Amino acid sequence: MSMYVYFFGEGKADGNAGMKDLLGGKGANLAEMINLGIPVPSGFTISTEVCSYYEKHQGGYPPELDKQVAAALAKVERAMASRFGDQENPLLLSVRSGAARSMPGMMDTILNLGLNDTTMQGLIKRTGDERFAYDCYRRFVAMYGDVVLGLKPEGKDDQDPFEVLLEAKKEAKGVHFDHELSAQDLKDLVREYKAEIKKKVGADFPEDPKAQLWGAIGAVFRSWNNPRAIAYRELNDIPDDMGTAVNVQSMVFGNMGKASGTGVAFTRDPASGADVFFGEYLMNAQGEDVVAGIRTPQPINKRQKGEKDVPSLEEEMPDIYRQLDEIRTKLDCHYRDMQDIEFTIQQGKLWMLQTRSGKRTGLAALRIAVDMVRQGLITKKEALLRVEPDQLNQVLRPIFDPQEKRKAMDNGKLVARGLNAGPGAASGKVVFNAPDAEEWAGRGEEVLLVRIETSPEDIRGLNAAQGILTARGGMTSHAALVARQMGKVCVAGCGALNIDYKKRQIQVESHIIKEGDYLSIDGTTGEVIIGKIATRPSEILQVLIEKSMKPGEAEIYGYYAELMSWADEVKRLGVRTNADKPDQASIAIAFGAEGIGLCRTEHMFFEGDRIDAVREMILADDKAGRERALAKLLPMQKADFKGIFQAMKERPVTIRTLDPPLHEFLPHTGKEIEELADKMGMAAEKLQSKVNALHEANPMLGHRGCRLGIVYPEITAMQAQAIFEAACEVTKQGIKVHPEVMIPLVGDVRELANQRRVVDETARAVFARNKVQVEYKVGTMIEVPRGALTADEVAQEAEFFSFGTNDLTQTTFGISRDDAGKFLNAYLQADIWDADPFEKLDRTGVGQLMTIAVQKGRGTRHDLKIGICGEHGGEPSSVEFCHQIGLNYVSCSPYRVPIARMAAAHAALKERSGD
Amino acid sequence: MSMYVYFFGEGKADGNAGMKDLLGGKGANLAEMINLGIPVPSGFTISTEVCSYYEKHQGGYPPELDKQVAAALAKVERAMASRFGDQENPLLLSVRSGAARSMPGMMDTILNLGLNDTTMQGLIKRTGDERFAYDCYRRFVAMYGDVVLGLKPEGKDDQDPFEVLLEAKKEAKGVHFDHELSAQDLKDLVREYKAEIKKKVGADFPEDPKAQLWGAIGAVFRSWNNPRAIAYRELNDIPDDMGTAVNVQSMVFGNMGKASGTGVAFTRDPASGADVFFGEYLMNAQGEDVVAGIRTPQPINKRQKGEKDVPSLEEEMPDIYRQLDEIRTKLDCHYRDMQDIEFTIQQGKLWMLQTRSGKRTGLAALRIAVDMVRQGLITKKEALLRVEPDQLNQVLRPIFDPQEKRKAMDNGKLVARGLNAGPGAASGKVVFNAPDAEEWAGRGEEVLLVRIETSPEDIRGLNAAQGILTARGGMTSHAALVARQMGKVCVAGCGALNIDYKKRQIQVESHIIKEGDYLSIDGTTGEVIIGKIATRPSEILQVLIEKSMKPGEAEIYGYYAELMSWADEVKRLGVRTNADKPDQASIAIAFGAEGIGLCRTEHMFFEGDRIDAVREMILADDKAGRERALAKLLPMQKADFKGIFQAMKERPVTIRTLDPPLHEFLPHTGKEIEELADKMGMAAEKLQSKVNALHEANPMLGHRGCRLGIVYPEITAMQAQAIFEAACEVTKQGIKVHPEVMIPLVGDVRELANQRRVVDETARAVFARNKVQVEYKVGTMIEVPRGALTADEVAQEAEFFSFGTNDLTQTTFGISRDDAGKFLNAYLQADIWDADPFEKLDRTGVGQLMTIAVQKGRGTRHDLKIGICGEHGGEPSSVEFCHQIGLNYVSCSPYRVPIARMAAAHAALKERSGD
Repeated sequence: MSMYVYFFGEGKADGNAGMKDLLGGKGANLAEMINLGIPVPSGFTISTEVCSYYEKHQGGYPPELDKQVAAALAKVERAMASRFGDQENPLLLSVRSGAARSMPGMMDTILNLGLNDTTMQGLIKRTGDERFAYDCYRRFVAMYGDVVLGLKPEGKDDQDPFEVLLEAKKEAKGVHFDHELSAQDLKDLVREYKAEIKKKVGADFPEDPKAQLWGAIGAVFRSWNNPRAIAYRELNDIPDDMGTAVNVQSMVFGNMGKASGTGVAFTRDPASGADVFFGEYLMNAQGEDVVAGIRTPQPINKRQKGEKDVPSLEEEMPDIYRQLDEIRTKLDCHYRDMQDIEFTIQQGKLWMLQTRSGKRTGLAALRIAVDMVRQGLITKKEALLRVEPDQLNQVLRPIFDPQEKRKAMDNGKLVARGLNAGPGAASGKVVFNAPDAEEWAGRGEEVLLVRIETSPEDIRGLNAAQGILTARGGMTSHAALVARQMGKVCVAGCGALNIDYKKRQIQVESHIIKEGDYLSIDGTTGEVIIGKIATRPSEILQVLIEKSMKPGEAEIYGYYAELMSWADEVKRLGVRTNADKPDQASIAIAFGAEGIGLCRTEHMFFEGDRIDAVREMILADDKAGRERALAKLLPMQKADFKGIFQAMKERPVTIRTLDPPLHEFLPHTGKEIEELADKMGMAAEKLQSKVNALHEANPMLGHRGCRLGIVYPEITAMQAQAIFEAACEVTKQGIKVHPEVMIPLVGDVRELANQRRVVDETARAVFARNKVQVEYKVGTMIEVPRGALTADEVAQEAEFFSFGTNDLTQTTFGISRDDAGKFLNAYLQADIWDADPFEKLDRTGVGQLMTIAVQKGRGTRHDLKIGICGEHGGEPSSVEFCHQIGLNYVSCSPYRVPIARMAAAHAALKERSGD
Repeated sequence: MSMYVYFFGEGKADGNAGMKDLLGGKGANLAEMINLGIPVPSGFTISTEVCSYYEKHQGGYPPELDKQVAAALAKVERAMASRFGDQENPLLLSVRSGAARSMPGMMDTILNLGLNDTTMQGLIKRTGDERFAYDCYRRFVAMYGDVVLGLKPEGKDDQDPFEVLLEAKKEAKGVHFDHELSAQDLKDLVREYKAEIKKKVGADFPEDPKAQLWGAIGAVFRSWNNPRAIAYRELNDIPDDMGTAVNVQSMVFGNMGKASGTGVAFTRDPASGADVFFGEYLMNAQGEDVVAGIRTPQPINKRQKGEKDVPSLEEEMPDIYRQLDEIRTKLDCHYRDMQDIEFTIQQGKLWMLQTRSGKRTGLAALRIAVDMVRQGLITKKEALLRVEPDQLNQVLRPIFDPQEKRKAMDNGKLVARGLNAGPGAASGKVVFNAPDAEEWAGRGEEVLLVRIETSPEDIRGLNAAQGILTARGGMTSHAALVARQMGKVCVAGCGALNIDYKKRQIQVESHIIKEGDYLSIDGTTGEVIIGKIATRPSEILQVLIEKSMKPGEAEIYGYYAELMSWADEVKRLGVRTNADKPDQASIAIAFGAEGIGLCRTEHMFFEGDRIDAVREMILADDKAGRERALAKLLPMQKADFKGIFQAMKERPVTIRTLDPPLHEFLPHTGKEIEELADKMGMAAEKLQSKVNALHEANPMLGHRGCRLGIVYPEITAMQAQAIFEAACEVTKQGIKVHPEVMIPLVGDVRELANQRRVVDETARAVFARNKVQVEYKVGTMIEVPRGALTADEVAQEAEFFSFGTNDLTQTTFGISRDDAGKFLNAYLQADIWDADPFEKLDRTGVGQLMTIAVQKGRGTRHDLKIGICGEHGGEPSSVEFCHQIGLNYVSCSPYRVPIARMAAAHAALKERSGD
């Protein structure tokens, strides 16, 4: 005979925590607590197998079930010393769903089951509280009517019939709150509820407790297939055939007078991760009273009291507190993880109702994981898997003062949400263009640069601003990319903003924000908030970047450093950074970067007066003119590379030759063109026609990347010369540098061969002049599909590949990331995309090309070094994929280096465990 | 002992025409002619094996060679009754290269070999012409110095030392032409040449004829590896190890007095293909005299005489003519192809010097191929392979009157060359915008629309113009695409034109062409010519399109129709057309289209007042507004589809849902926006901000294709309704229509599923209302790499694929075809690309994706119908590839349908022959 019903109570349970598939998470944990000797109201769990049976048999049960339920119920009666349906001392039950994987709020629950006109009298007798008893009865009838008898409204505009009656009653009595209704009122309501059921369903409310119980069990099983639950499973990849268990448990009440209460607690502090007991409770209350917010909860121990002058549980009920604290230690050690627990005190007796792993902040996750290793509870590998890579973002980014932010949000200052493109928090005065940002910041103002979208010209303004807010563009728009690169806070693509450059104001709904007004953006959540909110750097950032060593910061930094050292032990992928300047390189090294995977030379072109020489080069009529202008740029580029080589020491530095189309370096409005023409001493008309000639229909697919160097080999030659002269000079300083020259946008091996020839020839000449040999590599970006598809050929000329997954995603999908905002939301809503492919690497399409490229490339050159330097290089799921297909390294913006290191460690651990 | 030397002469030869690999084309054909009993000056061929040996042994020869050459030379002396090095009757030789595959002008030749101060006397005696003899001697010494002794200048700016001396001599003598120099002058020159050789080489000119011979043989073998020859082989895929043969042949002279002459002829008319003997000759002349153009050549027969009042060979030397005519017939029949022959008459004796397959016009190729089948000379399959698909273009396009065009070019009217984007010839008055083109054409003017580039708005102007000339854009730019679609003549991307819209003029070099001036463009060659040149439609076009049936036209049409019927017998690929309107569909059917492979619905959106409704739809604030505007478009689209269904009858019609980004339908300049705002009754400011909001950074990768229908399903629904209502109504007329709805730009099966749902639901509703069922298919374009890579998934929802290779090429390479002009030439020159990938399908990259898509797609759905509707569908090499990877059909613009049919036949024939 199959076992379908698992009893728990009287200090022992048929199940345990290992039986989640059969008993669901809740049932398995209740059984486990009983086995640990923890007081849990007795009950039983009907296994998930019955759910499958019920479904397959159109609502029928296995023949053995009836007897097994009856037997378990008898045991519960004995354990709780009460009887189901008894008019003197009635056993009341809760009936709850409980699947193997949590589906919060998706399925149904019935409380106070077993009440009828007869058992009501027993409840009144036992509690001596008629109002309490009728309130229980009223709630039960409504819940039963809603859930079991199907009166719960479907549409969101329909009203619950029981709510309608309750509201009518309150109005009739002239009261505002449920608790102001008298026992008689509630008694009347029970009658009205039953009449409503009779009217709607055509049958009486079942007075028989057994009938109530079977009705509730069936309803819970049916709720597995309600539309909400199905949708939730689809979204969370939970198989439909797992089924739910049903937990039938005796009720306990925290609102049975002064010796009763209810609370929730965490076995450690879920905010800081400190190993202290942390929780809240309310005396003489039910769980929902805490939610209602009418009464302020009390802390469970003295340590927490703080400014609130309310007694703690430790003071009010020291004996109960001691029991609870023991249970806390037992659960924390037993589960080897911070637990989120619920408890009820019924007339001086402590009952535990739930335990589960608790949600925590990034900081807490970090600290708990390391502490538990130190305490010998978990291994280093387990600790690593306890911290999601993205959680590190929380501990590395500047943050808003939580209380100030909450206050602002409560006051309706949250006016819009955009994409959380550059994490962290920033407040500043609104300016609408880059020169203003520079100027205002120059005189000591904190500014927030607000643009419809940004372009490379804005780079100095972006640098001067506290944060960047754009109305257009996605997670990998120019603003987002540069912001993450610089470690700037950024909210992008906030379409609700109506930015008017002329009026110098933003309109968003009814709000007008003018130039100079303070605005705050939370780049971790995408929130845009009116006014100023105080920010502070995270503790770890203080140590890492600002080299501060205040005690609290140093301690938290210690946790971070220890965990990251474990990550480095297990990860196989190297982690490099995308850095264009020495200061970025230094930050990245502090974050653990092992080299530079992408140094974009064009970003250097906007610094200081360089743009003049760049423009002179672009506007030159012939090669000689271009070479004259390039000669001016050479010493500057060389100085840049020297700085980077010096900062990176012996670490490899991958430098990409010029990539963007040349028109990005020219002005576009008539006025700017006139100014420039004036400066260059040429006719505005001629400059305008040059600008027109450089115009492109689709610049992303235009004259850029290696196509520039092929048409103008003198540009590549100048850049190679700057790289190798810098390398020679730094080598002479005693640093063994490792430059890697990367040719962008290669789709054909002959493109690479062409550019490689220029680079190699330049290297030979520079080494001969300097009488120094520097080891260097020449490789390519793989960022157009053809490059991946012909990787076997490309590898003949390339010593390394680096996947440029931003462009590879654009070309594989045929989607411009700058324009995707127009349909991204529609795609996510229609479930065409599971995620923005510019944020999370598309394994099916882009990943397929990457796999082809790795196989073909290594087929030609078995030791081909392969990395990734697109934005995906810092996104955990994408890092995992890079690990799986055997890349050598990932490269990402400096602030994401720790996240990539952790993601690389996760990937290695999951591979070993076969996950 | 190996045989290295192959003698020919005295009516027999060691070799034959089948030995091209060993003897080279020239040597094998000389041998073959001897074997046929045709008089050929005796000689011998040193085989290509010696070339390889020479290379491998650093200029050494096989030991047997010396003897074999001596033996052959003795036979030549006997055959020609003269002696090598003899002072009475010297044998003179030519030494020429001759590879298996023709490499015209790439390798070296020496004539008059065997002359020295001694044999000179013999030559003077034999000819009695001292000046003639010294001229031979002078030429030989210079040629020998240049070729064998290496005095030929390398750089293009260096001067040939012998030319310098010759010029000096002419100056000294006060004459202009070589032939004005006297015997003494030439004698002096020989001395000066020899002195120059002594000075430059440090050795005497070799007087010994044997030494001359071996020197010349070595020089010819070495010339196999000169840089020009290597480059030519690389370009033409000729293996480096094939080697050249050396042909040593006795000299004959056409300039030995009045009974001598020289000429070239074709065994049939190479222009018309008519089966008549056709050629030119000059009495008492050398081959180069014909080239020099000093004397007008005479026709070889009376038939050719025409307006020129000069005697023909037939009249002047009837006996020689008779011999020649016999040889003509013999060669034409023997080689079973039109031959290009060279002959020399030396003192009354006819010698044949060369025979080879002759180049011919498209018309001639067509006619000769069919005639030869009719004459039983070749099979139908051979006939098909004799006509290159692209040659059909020549017989289908309108053409300039050849004489008028030549006159214009001679007068310096050719001012620029662009891309030959739309073949044919057109003259018209220059206008600079589409409305003007319409207006001028409306009042009966022939106009040529000249634009920097064109856009969809220009469609009616393009239609009104005789031809289209643009300064920007490639072979698949908007102008080029639409021109080919419409069958318009087009020259695109003519960068030399400086178009000034304001001044309404074109400047090109020193020429100014103003609005209203006549300009002519040859879309077959890309030439831009000032002035008007008469044009006429080709004969076949007259019959096909204009249904004319004049006798001459009908005859030529008969050739065309017969050949095409053979093509259809062997081809396996279906050929469809890209057509947007009933008239295009009708033309395509006349050209042999079997269905429509691509009907672009958006082209219909620009017709008449429709653009107003389209704009109303785009500018609507909500779905209801869009639906109101779409309701106005519905009857118009439906009428379009009815017209197309009626034209195509039972043939399949593939209709693509809306593809271009919506901003293409809106005006962009401030003035146009104001006008439209006025018309729409909205504020210009609001319209401007709508236009701004629709702006895209990279429209090719923007909100277009199925992305439109996913965000605005009402557009797809309207289009589906128009298709199915039209289909129902035409079905009721008794035509069994086959609509195929094609969803563009699919990269994920879920996009297709989403749009398919809209189409299927609409179809069900329309069929129910009409009480008619129409068989239809839903499929997709494969035009982004992700669509190809996930074709297994996409095929779950698609009943057919159609490769959109324009966009697939753009995305696979990451190159915008509109912008590629900036580097296309640099790429072709640097040999990075063998051909423009937008013109000729890139098999390595794009083709790889297509192969993946075919395999994956058919893996899911074995009967998946797959076609191509990109521009490549009409390009022969691309059609061949489509055949090879197993597509079901190609689709191309109407005027390319015959070319695609022929290319498909070629592909099938080549597959069978294993080529």
